[in-house]
Amino acid sequence: MQNQYKQVLAVISFVFVFTLIKAQNKIVVFQSDFGLKDGAVSAMKGVAMGVSPDLKLYDLTHEIPAFNIWEAAYRLEQTVPYWPEGTVFVSVVDPGVGTNRKSVVLKTKTGKFIVTPDNGTLTLIAQSQGIAEIREIDEAVNRRKGSQGSYTFHGRDVYAYTAARLAAGVITFEQVGKKLPDSVVSIPYQKAVLEGNKLKGNISILDVQYGNVWTNIPADLFKQLNPAFGDSLQVTIFHSDKKVYTGKVPYSETFAAVPTGKPLCYLNSLMQLSLALNMGNFAAKYKIGSGSDWSLEAVLIKKK
Amino acid sequence: MQNQYKQVLAVISFVFVFTLIKAQNKIVVFQSDFGLKDGAVSAMKGVAMGVSPDLKLYDLTHEIPAFNIWEAAYRLEQTVPYWPEGTVFVSVVDPGVGTNRKSVVLKTKTGKFIVTPDNGTLTLIAQSQGIAEIREIDEAVNRRKGSQGSYTFHGRDVYAYTAARLAAGVITFEQVGKKLPDSVVSIPYQKAVLEGNKLKGNISILDVQYGNVWTNIPADLFKQLNPAFGDSLQVTIFHSDKKVYTGKVPYSETFAAVPTGKPLCYLNSLMQLSLALNMGNFAAKYKIGSGSDWSLEAVLIKKK
Amino acid sequence: MQNQYKQVLAVISFVFVFTLIKAQNKIVVFQSDFGLKDGAVSAMKGVAMGVSPDLKLYDLTHEIPAFNIWEAAYRLEQTVPYWPEGTVFVSVVDPGVGTNRKSVVLKTKTGKFIVTPDNGTLTLIAQSQGIAEIREIDEAVNRRKGSQGSYTFHGRDVYAYTAARLAAGVITFEQVGKKLPDSVVSIPYQKAVLEGNKLKGNISILDVQYGNVWTNIPADLFKQLNPAFGDSLQVTIFHSDKKVYTGKVPYSETFAAVPTGKPLCYLNSLMQLSLALNMGNFAAKYKIGSGSDWSLEAVLIKKK
Repeated sequence: MQNQYKQVLAVISFVFVFTLIKAQNKIVVFQSDFGLKDGAVSAMKGVAMGVSPDLKLYDLTHEIPAFNIWEAAYRLEQTVPYWPEGTVFVSVVDPGVGTNRKSVVLKTKTGKFIVTPDNGTLTLIAQSQGIAEIREIDEAVNRRKGSQGSYTFHGRDVYAYTAARLAAGVITFEQVGKKLPDSVVSIPYQKAVLEGNKLKGNISILDVQYGNVWTNIPADLFKQLNPAFGDSLQVTIFHSDKKVYTGKVPYSETFAAVPTGKPLCYLNSLMQLSLALNMGNFAAKYKIGSGSDWSLEAVLIKKK
Repeated sequence: MQNQYKQVLAVISFVFVFTLIKAQNKIVVFQSDFGLKDGAVSAMKGVAMGVSPDLKLYDLTHEIPAFNIWEAAYRLEQTVPYWPEGTVFVSVVDPGVGTNRKSVVLKTKTGKFIVTPDNGTLTLIAQSQGIAEIREIDEAVNRRKGSQGSYTFHGRDVYAYTAARLAAGVITFEQVGKKLPDSVVSIPYQKAVLEGNKLKGNISILDVQYGNVWTNIPADLFKQLNPAFGDSLQVTIFHSDKKVYTGKVPYSETFAAVPTGKPLCYLNSLMQLSLALNMGNFAAKYKIGSGSDWSLEAVLIKKK
Repeated sequence: MQNQYKQVLAVISFVFVFTLIKAQNKIVVFQSDFGLKDGAVSAMKGVAMGVSPDLKLYDLTHEIPAFNIWEAAYRLEQTVPYWPEGTVFVSVVDPGVGTNRKSVVLKTKTGKFIVTPDNGTLTLIAQSQGIAEIREIDEAVNRRKGSQGSYTFHGRDVYAYTAARLAAGVITFEQVGKKLPDSVVSIPYQKAVLEGNKLKGNISILDVQYGNVWTNIPADLFKQLNPAFGDSLQVTIFHSDKKVYTGKVPYSETFAAVPTGKPLCYLNSLMQLSLALNMGNFAAKYKIGSGSDWSLEAVLIKKK
């Protein structure tokens, strides 16, 4: 009888462990330049559901401008930190599909995974989150069965499939493929620096919905100038070497601190120096773009 | 032995209760004016997944025109009734971020929760669903750890975080913060009324995909005119006090009841009086907008 | 005591079976021409969550051009094969809402379900996946309670509701309604054929994000011409009977095999003959459309 009792308890324990395993992360987050008008994103998610219906599938964005690797890199940088440890990201912006760029999985030092072609997409995240390990996807095993004849939709047949198997625990990180050296293909850009009294940085991205201009200059660096609300920045914006904008913009705690339509600078939600018009579109008004070839210089002017 | 049996049963009961708790709603529905081109929506969802991976995250829309509080109010009104009791909605259309508008959670009399700045977003839902209780979010406790330096992305750090904790049962509704009086900030607009033989109402929204014009006049009020299919309405549309459209439109059971390109009026999926062109775009053709400053008058003309 | 042990085991078995049932597919995938700017898609999902919060709700696309049944048919064709057996699709592109088109559920021979008006939406999927059985939705039972007065949002009140109940196991396929004959309303189009040395086919769709032109000519048929990479196709494109494009396009393994901006033909991710410009937009440059009235002829020219 004691034995029977033990058997029952063993069964119950199994149920519990099974429940605990099920309670793991299992989250996959998709990014691409596919847009949402056709079935490409849905086909990727269908493949993932075929691997395991217990996965939880979410989106970063699918509106990356076609072939814009820089923006793919930036959206990862902006978003990855807010997802829990163990989340698997798939990023498919892949102008070189069919060429010899490597298909990789990066494990960050913060315990997140990014499945992507190694074509510059990892430029920013590798720096900010750190590289724990990179592995090359072994397509001999990590490729959807029956897809060998298709060579143009790696997003579905290799990336989504591998991400789903990794997230579901069908394969371990080691089973992705062979370990690569700890470096990624990187796009050059103006790093954030303070040279004398002059801040320099890159215009990483536009906050497209509102037309705000976001730089890569972090709060820590900006604050070395000891700015107070009401002080201003004398800002110059360059596209490659061409001056596109110069202006004096007050440093403001809220958008409403300046009149409607007037410029301001502020720390955005990523704690980086940014430019905006209150209730307006800075980028559209001054024809500002973003990417590795856009940069900015700024000098602090104290309020009198 | 009897005791051991009881213990086993206790464990099983626990498993069952645990399963039942897991079977609760746990649904969070997001709305914003962020668009889907950047990482803002994904960052909010990442924060929610960090609170509990068991949550089920869905979207209302993220294409609210920037800063358009009226439309945010309307989309909630249109959608909240169709989600089950216990669902938590997050609405972030927040032109006053950083000013002294309150961050609140409204519990409706129908058992749904709306997490939002109290800036007019609750105008319609508070009336139609009723206010069970409103609480102000206590940011001292209900704010993502480490986000105190950031003051511009309350959507992620306060609203999504609080909604996720509420939906996951990490906090009770009482733990949101202190109870407020049962009233919300409301935007004035033309209520639906019948004055003599004249219907008056507001143009709440355009059915943007098709260009149909939706009013706030409910079927019950309209039917006091005893309309039959084939009867017509003599309609006048105003923007503030300016006449924008007058026309005679037949009351139709189906769009196909009038020739292609011709106007009709009908009861939409919310059982409210609406105007359309069969296979066409009424709003674009007649330059009709929507919002608190658009109104309409209509008189019934019986078929001869 | 033995009896008590058996009771305990019975309870545990029940827990297991319950878990297994819960582990079933339960996936619903939504498609429509509603767009994502209003609350229509969210209302459909809310109704589905009200049926069962255990359902997993995903999207195919909601950006089908308004009333474009052909494109709805094509998106299903493109996507359904990649979702696992048991998945329930809802497709609502319904210009004839309120007329006498039938509301049906198609079960394919591959074990997938499509809930839709039978208005041509099933043209392609019925051919490619095969018809296992078709049933007409009995709206007397399969209609959201309280929705009888509303006749314009079948997507929410009939299609989403029925799909959710079917996916959640609330009703069996037989309980959808009465069995119909094994045929669907079909849109005529140019089938893929090889006549002598001339390939003929339909331009099924544009790969909208990139402007690539996708035909319905499968790899198997194309390969009867024994093409080698570097050979070319002499292509003519017709809109109804009007010639819109003629040109010689090399058959390429990768986009990068031709210079930037130059045309090529290739096998797309569905293994169908397609046309593209490397890093460009073929459809926009040559004003090519897609649908049942667009066709193409092609003759192979061997590399010298």
